[in-house]
Amino acid sequence: MLLKEKLSDRTQNMGENIIREILKVVSKPGMISLAGGIPSPESFPTEIFPELFKTVQEKYKTEAFQYGPTEGFFPLREALVPILKKEGLNVSPQEIMITSGSQGTLDALGKILINKGDLVAVESPTYLGALSAFNPYEPQYIGIKSDDDGLIPEYLEEALKNNSVKFIYLIPTFQNPTGRTIPQSRRVEIARIIKKYDALLIEDNPYSELRYSGSHIKTISSLIPENSVYISTLSKLFAPGLRIGYFVAPEIIRHWLTLAKQGIDLHTSTLNQALAAEYITSGYLEKQIPQIIELYRPKQEMMLYALNKYMPNGFTWSKPEGGMFIWVEGPTHLEMKEVNKICIENSIAFVPGEVFFSNPDQGKNCLRLNFTMISPEIIENSIKKLGNIFKSLPNS
Amino acid sequence: MLLKEKLSDRTQNMGENIIREILKVVSKPGMISLAGGIPSPESFPTEIFPELFKTVQEKYKTEAFQYGPTEGFFPLREALVPILKKEGLNVSPQEIMITSGSQGTLDALGKILINKGDLVAVESPTYLGALSAFNPYEPQYIGIKSDDDGLIPEYLEEALKNNSVKFIYLIPTFQNPTGRTIPQSRRVEIARIIKKYDALLIEDNPYSELRYSGSHIKTISSLIPENSVYISTLSKLFAPGLRIGYFVAPEIIRHWLTLAKQGIDLHTSTLNQALAAEYITSGYLEKQIPQIIELYRPKQEMMLYALNKYMPNGFTWSKPEGGMFIWVEGPTHLEMKEVNKICIENSIAFVPGEVFFSNPDQGKNCLRLNFTMISPEIIENSIKKLGNIFKSLPNS
Repeated sequence: MLLKEKLSDRTQNMGENIIREILKVVSKPGMISLAGGIPSPESFPTEIFPELFKTVQEKYKTEAFQYGPTEGFFPLREALVPILKKEGLNVSPQEIMITSGSQGTLDALGKILINKGDLVAVESPTYLGALSAFNPYEPQYIGIKSDDDGLIPEYLEEALKNNSVKFIYLIPTFQNPTGRTIPQSRRVEIARIIKKYDALLIEDNPYSELRYSGSHIKTISSLIPENSVYISTLSKLFAPGLRIGYFVAPEIIRHWLTLAKQGIDLHTSTLNQALAAEYITSGYLEKQIPQIIELYRPKQEMMLYALNKYMPNGFTWSKPEGGMFIWVEGPTHLEMKEVNKICIENSIAFVPGEVFFSNPDQGKNCLRLNFTMISPEIIENSIKKLGNIFKSLPNS
Repeated sequence: MLLKEKLSDRTQNMGENIIREILKVVSKPGMISLAGGIPSPESFPTEIFPELFKTVQEKYKTEAFQYGPTEGFFPLREALVPILKKEGLNVSPQEIMITSGSQGTLDALGKILINKGDLVAVESPTYLGALSAFNPYEPQYIGIKSDDDGLIPEYLEEALKNNSVKFIYLIPTFQNPTGRTIPQSRRVEIARIIKKYDALLIEDNPYSELRYSGSHIKTISSLIPENSVYISTLSKLFAPGLRIGYFVAPEIIRHWLTLAKQGIDLHTSTLNQALAAEYITSGYLEKQIPQIIELYRPKQEMMLYALNKYMPNGFTWSKPEGGMFIWVEGPTHLEMKEVNKICIENSIAFVPGEVFFSNPDQGKNCLRLNFTMISPEIIENSIKKLGNIFKSLPNS
């Protein structure tokens, strides 16, 4: 059978996830990967799980294993209320919905919002997983220019003034891939612009609790809740393999997202939602966060120190106060995709920056580095190695 | 903000899931529900879970809580090989993919296969969850006529001859909503027709292990593997709240479904996949199946007995050899949607048959009954009550 003829047109928008392809290559033994974006297993509350599981089974009995409501397991929705309060969102449990990872929110939002050809505004660069979620719904993108302080409000205003934009997708804090954070004053300005054009913001906030220095900044959604969908996840603070994401949105979005999710997966794993609810309400999450920060802070400090020490002239990089990534910009003549091949031959890998742009001609001289999975010692060695590779290239 | 204007056109195809709406109504205390479609919590291996969890944590350590491959957790894919062999499917673990419930397969298949306006052939009536999964991708349906032996091959051939059909969706064994099973001879004929027109079959098989009488019949996919996507789930044999589905498909479908799933939810819960793998490989599944059968068989026998005893003339019903449902057809003048309202006032509920038809003008005089959630005693009482309500209606 010519199965290819059976494929829908939208498959043409589904590219290989290049990061997953790189991760396959770098899973070989001896390879040092700065390419991943996954939490360290040391950050998981491994020793607490048996107790959590026992509590869940005693407390919820067979309910923990049964079909559950599409909107989410109510004890988890209740448990998330104080967590959202810290982000400036004063909501009831009913206003919170649970999805299968924040990827689950992004896909379902794409489904209920995007018509073929609709304009979606994204930071440039932006999160690859968001593009993977939206692409099958065949939008067009406007990449909004960013600087060291993230999205530049003037460019957002220009985009909204001149175009009919379906929504704006942002990661304002410790962005993936850049690690950049939009400062408070700029958040106020972005909120004002979104309000002025009565636009819709999708604010993705997976990293804000991973802050290693500086002070917490409130979400943009807290300034304009009626124009915002706020998304977060427990993947970085509990365990990503449990696939628990959540969001807060205006009623009409929750209504349609519930209907969409019924068709997508009926509901998110009840057992995993119950484990997450107990993890939060038992106070374990609050104890775990400082431990995760203490685990990651020295890694990030070492990477910044090593970049400073080993990278040749002509390179700059972000200096994030948290998160999981550092963004490096090299001389404009360098094609990081090619450099990565040389690096992989030398048992080291990163992600070339161009994969994070909706317009594939950008970011060719950039790369993303991750520091969560390896020790400070290995981080220093690998950045030294990386610096030496760059120094050995012609024209550098 | 006029958020309504932000919605995609495809939301117009997302109806309320009427069963979920009915289930909300019938969750009131004192209500007897024949409307559900969920496994009895008594069928869950509740007492085994602590051991499974312990084994998973010892064996897989932090891997059980980490991000995993989109295709599925390899030990589970391996564990499913012998289960698929029983259905006549001789496949390697690599040919098996895991999804978030079989709903997750249906949604992702819709995404990679259906263009707006494409024709999808379904049994008439068919599974509501499949329509919920496909509808957002805006197909058109051809409902293929069924009789007591399920889909009628001649009508399928006519549909394939005269139309360009994207795929045929069938539940050949203990169908939802009718409980009907397509006999072996008719399966051979359906396979021949699909092969002749080089069509694509999506065979959904969630219930075949729930057989209370008669002999096992092999899947249609086993006759034409290269023209088939075979879908099943652990929801009826392990625990539905864990959301573990799986499928077998030709390579190109698996390739695109993997890319689609990266955008939908990255992967299915690693922890739940690991629990399922241990449940199967430790031999617990094989021990659990006879227990589930012994739990459901008397319920189904009682429902068939009570229908025979209490239903007025003019009613017929399916006599399934397994599964979770019985399909009742009443006199043509009866509108079961209206009758259900009277029943709900009398603290009893079913699902009106019309919701299971892609063409909403059909099945108005039909209803679906479920027997898994209540005891034989309550089944007898409720069918007696139902019979009395029907007898009390004018014109009956």
